[in-house]
Amino acid sequence: MLRDLQLSQVYKLIEPGPVVLLTTAQKGRPNVMAMSWHMMMEFNPPLIACIVSGANHSFAALRKTGECVIAIPTAELASLVVKIGNVSGSDVDKFEALGISSKAAALVTAPLLTDCYANLECKVTDTTLVRKYNLFILEVVKAWIDRTKRNPKTIHHKGFGTFTVDGETLRLRSKKP
Amino acid sequence: MLRDLQLSQVYKLIEPGPVVLLTTAQKGRPNVMAMSWHMMMEFNPPLIACIVSGANHSFAALRKTGECVIAIPTAELASLVVKIGNVSGSDVDKFEALGISSKAAALVTAPLLTDCYANLECKVTDTTLVRKYNLFILEVVKAWIDRTKRNPKTIHHKGFGTFTVDGETLRLRSKKP
Repeated sequence: MLRDLQLSQVYKLIEPGPVVLLTTAQKGRPNVMAMSWHMMMEFNPPLIACIVSGANHSFAALRKTGECVIAIPTAELASLVVKIGNVSGSDVDKFEALGISSKAAALVTAPLLTDCYANLECKVTDTTLVRKYNLFILEVVKAWIDRTKRNPKTIHHKGFGTFTVDGETLRLRSKKP
Repeated sequence: MLRDLQLSQVYKLIEPGPVVLLTTAQKGRPNVMAMSWHMMMEFNPPLIACIVSGANHSFAALRKTGECVIAIPTAELASLVVKIGNVSGSDVDKFEALGISSKAAALVTAPLLTDCYANLECKVTDTTLVRKYNLFILEVVKAWIDRTKRNPKTIHHKGFGTFTVDGETLRLRSKKP
C-alpha cells in the first residue's frame, strides 16, 4: 500500500546507503537494475546523485527519457535484487521473467515497484558529469512509502552478493538532520 | 593496528553507505567532520564523490589543500561521531576537546584516525560541481585497515542522531562486484 511521503523526508531513506532498484521505461518497455552507487546531495527539493554505467542497459533509457524511479527493497527481496543484477535488460524483460510487481507512477514514465518499501519518482536535472563519469543528478519529484511494512530492514552491498542487513537502532541526541 | 589495504578493495567499505569521518588539515591545524553524503564512482583507482557543505568548517580546508582522509568508524564510536557532528571546528580543536587519537598519513597532510576501522587517504581530483552543489570528487591514493577489529559493525545515519547498526550478513551468489 503505497502512500504519499513528504519530499523533506526522502533523505532519511537514502542517506543510510541501502541497495536500491532503479526503473526506467523507454518506448513502452520497462527495465530495472540494482544500484549501490548513489548519495543525497540536497534535502529539499531532494537531489540524489548516482552512477549508472554505460554498460547497463538502463543507461540509454535514463539518458533519453530523463526519468526514473528509485525503489528501496527490504531484506525479503534480497534474492530478487541479485537476480535483477545478474541478467541484462537487453536480453530479457526482467519484469516478466522475474515476476516483478509494478504499477504506473504519477509523474514519470518509469514504473513503481509495489513490493518495495519506498519509491521515489525522479527526473534527471543535471548531466554535466555523465559523459566523464556516468554521474547523473536526479531531483525527486514525488515519493511513496508503504507503512504497512513494519520494521523494514534494508540491505547494503559489500560486493559479489554479500549484503549486510539492518540491525539494531541507536538513538543518540543530535541537533543535526 | 592500521595495515595496507589494496585500493581495489576500497569500494567494499564505501558502497554499503556507512557514516564516515572526514579529516582535513590546514596550516598545521587538523579538523574532522561527520559525513553521510558520499558514494563510490569508480572501482580502481577508487573515486569517491561527496558533499561537503560550505557551512562546514572543513569546506575551506578541503578546497584549499585538496586533501582529506575518510575514516570509517564502527558502532563503538557512535557517540563520538555525534559529538564531532555537533561542534564546529571554527570554535574548538575537536581533536583536543574530544580526545580523538590520530597519526600522520603517508601521502596527505590530513591525519588518520587510529581508532577507526579503516582510513582512506584522498586527493581532490575534480571540482567541477563544487560551486553549484558542494560536490567534491576524490581519488583514494592510499588505504589502511585495522584487521584486529573483529566483525566490525558500521553505522548508517537516518537523521537527528538515529543510526542503524550493521546486523546479519546475507551471502547470495552473484557475478557482480
